[in-house]
Amino acid sequence: MTAAIRILGLDPGLRKTGWGLVVSEGTRLSFGACGVVESDDKRPLAERLRQIHAGLESVIKAQAPHEVAVEETFVNRDPQSALKLGQARGIALVVPALAGLDVAEYAANLVKKTVVGVGHADKKQVQAMIRVLLPKAVTTSADAADALAIAICHAQHRGARELLARHQALKA
Amino acid sequence: MTAAIRILGLDPGLRKTGWGLVVSEGTRLSFGACGVVESDDKRPLAERLRQIHAGLESVIKAQAPHEVAVEETFVNRDPQSALKLGQARGIALVVPALAGLDVAEYAANLVKKTVVGVGHADKKQVQAMIRVLLPKAVTTSADAADALAIAICHAQHRGARELLARHQALKA
Repeated sequence: MTAAIRILGLDPGLRKTGWGLVVSEGTRLSFGACGVVESDDKRPLAERLRQIHAGLESVIKAQAPHEVAVEETFVNRDPQSALKLGQARGIALVVPALAGLDVAEYAANLVKKTVVGVGHADKKQVQAMIRVLLPKAVTTSADAADALAIAICHAQHRGARELLARHQALKA
Repeated sequence: MTAAIRILGLDPGLRKTGWGLVVSEGTRLSFGACGVVESDDKRPLAERLRQIHAGLESVIKAQAPHEVAVEETFVNRDPQSALKLGQARGIALVVPALAGLDVAEYAANLVKKTVVGVGHADKKQVQAMIRVLLPKAVTTSADAADALAIAICHAQHRGARELLARHQALKA
């Protein structure tokens, strides 16, 4: 018997942070839950970040993940947008760490390649593959679908990460 | 008699986040304390952000500020550096917000202009002015001195901010 691992994927954004939980049991993957944590863009920045912080805390409490994965954001835009996104991303990384959870990071291209088969897939292709891989998933938004894709990516790669970590520990 | 307002200034950075507390009493300003919260660059990013989060929580608990001010970071560098800085800045903004404190933001140029008199002052000029304005300050690092400068800037401008907020509340 293989233990079921609950994996939470996070797709950070200041306005909307997507989250998705998948359950990995051996080679089987199943849908847990998904949703979006939103912040009120009429409030000051610190308060918006507090809303994301509180929202993600609730998600982690309710979904009780064993492991968390966050997309390594691809930034090709101006520094000001990158700074803004970074602020939301800091919250998405720190809330699981505060709960004592390991946080893995995956490049956006690897997430798409793992889920769709190509690194330059668009949002619609990701959503279509989520419906195939997790037929029970009800994704109401692209952000939640992206978060599920990140969780799937971690489910596929976590074995390799563990082996590598064990290997590095032996060498040290 | 005027109430003493404890103001905490924060200068966020992933490696070193400077903090400085000044006490504002009417037109008098005095030094409270200052220091740096560091993160271990050999640890994963989420864990480094957790270290900053925990460090700032301790500072807020120990220094009991009434108000907090953070520098509005000037980003002219590449998007990747801006993202990195944004992550640390997100933590500096969210920790006081979680403690129920208002967080003001000031552009770096305004901070320098308020403290030194010119917007393009360098770190040495800021440190020299801190020694004049807060003779009792023992600043062991440029980050702590910058954080004190941000707190001084807020002390100078908070009156105007309050008037503006009251005016906007009356209009609403």
